[in-house]
Amino acid sequence: MNNKISKIGVFTSGGDAPGMNAAIRAVVRACAYYKVDCVGVLRGYEGMIEGDFEQLDARSVGNILQRGGTVLKSARSKEFRTPEGRLKALGKLRSEGIDALVAIGGDGTFTGLHKFYQEFSIPSICIPGTIDNDLSGTDYTIGYDTATNTAVEAIDKIRDTALSHNRLFFIEVMGRNSGYIAINSGIAGGAAAIVIPEETMTFDELYEKLGEGEETSKKSNLVVVAEGSKIGDAHTLAKKVAERSSYFDIKVTVLGHLQRGGAPTYFDRVLASRMGIAAVEGLLNNKSDVMVGIKDNKIVYNDFDTIMQSHHEIDEESMRIAKILSI
Amino acid sequence: MNNKISKIGVFTSGGDAPGMNAAIRAVVRACAYYKVDCVGVLRGYEGMIEGDFEQLDARSVGNILQRGGTVLKSARSKEFRTPEGRLKALGKLRSEGIDALVAIGGDGTFTGLHKFYQEFSIPSICIPGTIDNDLSGTDYTIGYDTATNTAVEAIDKIRDTALSHNRLFFIEVMGRNSGYIAINSGIAGGAAAIVIPEETMTFDELYEKLGEGEETSKKSNLVVVAEGSKIGDAHTLAKKVAERSSYFDIKVTVLGHLQRGGAPTYFDRVLASRMGIAAVEGLLNNKSDVMVGIKDNKIVYNDFDTIMQSHHEIDEESMRIAKILSI
Amino acid sequence: MNNKISKIGVFTSGGDAPGMNAAIRAVVRACAYYKVDCVGVLRGYEGMIEGDFEQLDARSVGNILQRGGTVLKSARSKEFRTPEGRLKALGKLRSEGIDALVAIGGDGTFTGLHKFYQEFSIPSICIPGTIDNDLSGTDYTIGYDTATNTAVEAIDKIRDTALSHNRLFFIEVMGRNSGYIAINSGIAGGAAAIVIPEETMTFDELYEKLGEGEETSKKSNLVVVAEGSKIGDAHTLAKKVAERSSYFDIKVTVLGHLQRGGAPTYFDRVLASRMGIAAVEGLLNNKSDVMVGIKDNKIVYNDFDTIMQSHHEIDEESMRIAKILSI
Amino acid sequence: MNNKISKIGVFTSGGDAPGMNAAIRAVVRACAYYKVDCVGVLRGYEGMIEGDFEQLDARSVGNILQRGGTVLKSARSKEFRTPEGRLKALGKLRSEGIDALVAIGGDGTFTGLHKFYQEFSIPSICIPGTIDNDLSGTDYTIGYDTATNTAVEAIDKIRDTALSHNRLFFIEVMGRNSGYIAINSGIAGGAAAIVIPEETMTFDELYEKLGEGEETSKKSNLVVVAEGSKIGDAHTLAKKVAERSSYFDIKVTVLGHLQRGGAPTYFDRVLASRMGIAAVEGLLNNKSDVMVGIKDNKIVYNDFDTIMQSHHEIDEESMRIAKILSI
Repeated sequence: MNNKISKIGVFTSGGDAPGMNAAIRAVVRACAYYKVDCVGVLRGYEGMIEGDFEQLDARSVGNILQRGGTVLKSARSKEFRTPEGRLKALGKLRSEGIDALVAIGGDGTFTGLHKFYQEFSIPSICIPGTIDNDLSGTDYTIGYDTATNTAVEAIDKIRDTALSHNRLFFIEVMGRNSGYIAINSGIAGGAAAIVIPEETMTFDELYEKLGEGEETSKKSNLVVVAEGSKIGDAHTLAKKVAERSSYFDIKVTVLGHLQRGGAPTYFDRVLASRMGIAAVEGLLNNKSDVMVGIKDNKIVYNDFDTIMQSHHEIDEESMRIAKILSI
Repeated sequence: MNNKISKIGVFTSGGDAPGMNAAIRAVVRACAYYKVDCVGVLRGYEGMIEGDFEQLDARSVGNILQRGGTVLKSARSKEFRTPEGRLKALGKLRSEGIDALVAIGGDGTFTGLHKFYQEFSIPSICIPGTIDNDLSGTDYTIGYDTATNTAVEAIDKIRDTALSHNRLFFIEVMGRNSGYIAINSGIAGGAAAIVIPEETMTFDELYEKLGEGEETSKKSNLVVVAEGSKIGDAHTLAKKVAERSSYFDIKVTVLGHLQRGGAPTYFDRVLASRMGIAAVEGLLNNKSDVMVGIKDNKIVYNDFDTIMQSHHEIDEESMRIAKILSI
Repeated sequence: MNNKISKIGVFTSGGDAPGMNAAIRAVVRACAYYKVDCVGVLRGYEGMIEGDFEQLDARSVGNILQRGGTVLKSARSKEFRTPEGRLKALGKLRSEGIDALVAIGGDGTFTGLHKFYQEFSIPSICIPGTIDNDLSGTDYTIGYDTATNTAVEAIDKIRDTALSHNRLFFIEVMGRNSGYIAINSGIAGGAAAIVIPEETMTFDELYEKLGEGEETSKKSNLVVVAEGSKIGDAHTLAKKVAERSSYFDIKVTVLGHLQRGGAPTYFDRVLASRMGIAAVEGLLNNKSDVMVGIKDNKIVYNDFDTIMQSHHEIDEESMRIAKILSI
Repeated sequence: MNNKISKIGVFTSGGDAPGMNAAIRAVVRACAYYKVDCVGVLRGYEGMIEGDFEQLDARSVGNILQRGGTVLKSARSKEFRTPEGRLKALGKLRSEGIDALVAIGGDGTFTGLHKFYQEFSIPSICIPGTIDNDLSGTDYTIGYDTATNTAVEAIDKIRDTALSHNRLFFIEVMGRNSGYIAINSGIAGGAAAIVIPEETMTFDELYEKLGEGEETSKKSNLVVVAEGSKIGDAHTLAKKVAERSSYFDIKVTVLGHLQRGGAPTYFDRVLASRMGIAAVEGLLNNKSDVMVGIKDNKIVYNDFDTIMQSHHEIDEESMRIAKILSI
């Protein structure tokens, strides 16, 4: 192992995701295990520039494993995008004695870290923490499992009222440009149709799936729409259906930010724990400028370019499944 | 007990609420207990007009106690508002042999039942089933406890992300013209401010509560807005705050229909069970044209006029509490 | 208001209950509102004797409202039962300048507080925090609503497997000598029989309710047993049924301590908030040696003797309801 | 595709698991999609012997996706283990016209199906439905993800009370001879120690992990014990610790059957949906006497011998992770 690293700084950045605290805990405890100091950087790159640091030992991360959000807080920093901002951050890290970094966040976080590494060669590893599951290089990002379950629980509740009133519901879920949450919460929620950015479906094709006037019409009429939908958001689609036919009693629910919070599932906690440990072990083994990932249940380290040049594709199998089930 | 009643028809009408199934089950089992036949009327007044009936015995309502929605389904019927529609309904009830009615729903449901009773004197009792808790004559309506907990669980999740990002959230909850869900989910959710139709609060007063720039600013900045708000809905209020100040990072979530569904709480199941039994026992004791209620934990029977002429007031104590807690 | 009180000490004692943190928060914020200092006493009477204190202001109780357990921790203290122990505690309170106390706990907590008051006349008020709902003088104790819902959620899960296998389940719930959790989780869980200490039911009567060999046997065969059962605990009853008949496929689940934890329901949070404020306001209005209670949704203050001399009775109506529903 | 199969019988057998209904639904809808008839066999092999069948079309499995348990019910059949029993079953299947079988269950279920196939060559495929995740040939069995989350939610609640009282809890989770639920709920629950059958740990080693009297003792003292533990169950281990030291305040909770029920997670619903479709497609492609599995997120078909001759090993990585995190 590398004995050059003596103090690791850990921070969260970008949108928060359930399991980030479990990842922080794992980074801190792995540091304690390998006898490396650990410092928390508050509010991401913003706190780094301001030198907002906090010593962390194995006990200071007790009882956070199960909490949503991030105890280190998160922020988006404009200043870090400037050379001056990054230079300030470097100064603060140096005076604190931090000689390696673990970032927990999405592609924006990794991009910032990569730039910082290119300029100053400070050893650094990124952990994918985002509910969107939109990063290639990892089968799962931290928070995705929880967010999808949160969406499904909401869909289950909406189904109760949809069934009771024979209503058609358009439910919009998060995911930015990715349809992961939508396709899987849609399959798990028994949706009649699922609208995701990865699939080319016209409005007419969507309309047909709703089965107006069919004898065999399904009772539960739910349409799950990814926020990245290319044929209109939930409100727009609902409006267009209403314009075409008065057959349906239509309602819309945009699940919104409640998908970001809540206690993480076991899957996200274990994933975050593994990735947190892998990040520290990676640094101690001279890995740098990489993102930890999980592929076929094994830890991998991805180069920056690998991550950024490709989209995390949705298996075509998922769309095929959805189609068969909504017969 | 009255031996004139031999077959009770039970139905749900208006918006669905968690606990309606528990009430249906209690009506059916009370009928079995008192050896009166029981028939389910599907889709409320609409199904009554169409004669959409289903025999129900003690076993046919097994395993529904815990389910959201209503197995009898619900609908809003325009035809029942016409004399012709009501006459049709009477005919269907008579040919089925139904000689008494138990309706589960809100004020619209009770209004229809009252009119029907005035015209045809068919013994009938209403059970208050609505998440809004907007009916005077009862401390609690069926579904209110569950819906408030659902709102609070969503607020808890949003707090995770609000705290992580130091954000200000406007969260809109249901309740029609009533602030009950809002005031109690707001107190339970630790809201900085709560906007309800029953309280006169200007936008300026609301703005002041957000504590812009104060040293002692609370970390969790949540504003809960009742859908009946008289100073603007969540989106409008958020926009107005944003226009006045760039201090806040503002987000909006409208919880929507997920508040209607889900497994009912123990409270709603027990309340619904008590009210279902009380409705049947009321009919057998010659009560009619009344709504069952619970007052100081005792069953009461309210006249139609009592219910309709007054609003279910929110205790001023609640607003006082909210103010002290948000210091 | 009384200006003699300048610093209130607040502590939790006895078994923890969901909502205790909401009560602590309310006490602290009410102190801030009325400009009285507030100090947290850690680990109940034990921490009082050791002088384990912590200054609390409005901000130090942020983000605890939704958490189970108690941030002030709880313990049972033998030493406080001795005159020497109480004298030590008094000394520690005096040197800290604490001149009034708010205790959150059950009857044991109140008994200790009462004795302390009799000896030293330090103004003190108790808030009923226990899942057992076993205190007369209040319709509800803090934690009872949450614990009952937790029990019902567990029962719902067990019903899934009971129904799938046509099994008979004995489920033991908490409540010490009180049948409150049992009767209400039993009604809400659709139990075939409910065994509580308040009702005299022989084993034979219980056996009869299980309906061996009846044509109309209910599919869901659940028996909820209060831990205070006078005819045997869940394991004993299950064994006795198995000895009498091989008709049933019997399983037992003792829910145990998971009933004590978890995020409190809205009801417990609001109740705890009201009681916390009422305790501070009571002290400021010269009330002492009393327990806050809620009766017909209004705050009351109960004398020690009132509380201790009577059992919190279960409404006979509840047992009647349970009987009708399990037909 | 094979046009010889015209009617598929589907059944659940052995212990129920959340997601079985999702699998049933997928089998039925895949049959509808491929225009093959589908019949539900009630109560597993027992119902097969009795000819307890039910026609199932795409609509008859609506609104079951989210329910725990199995709508087809499950049972263990002694008679099917006899040649006479199996012959009876064959007769019933033939008169119903069922010419292929899909079984959902664990190793006992597959063993029965394998024997039946060897005797009568009826095309048949097994889907792994068990919370234990104890089948090699698949990374995950249906129900495991949900059960582990249920265990973690219970552990989270117990942690509240453990922390409030500085208590040591022994929590026993299910899994038969497998430590999967234990190791992952233990990691996710932040356990100080995890006892699983796959790892050789002596009682002394366990005792050491509890950290009696250490300055750095962790506040949350939870030990998760798999029911297959080889060094004693939770009660036994608790007793042995208590005998050795009075330092700890010890409690025990055996989670029991509540781990079997509840609404399945998105993961289990999607997994069950994929496997249900794969089973039907496998039959139509002349696969038989195999168990569907998921390996590295791809559907595989495993021979009977493959499944039965090896244990589903727990990754050593998991134990390593657990050790680092409990520092």
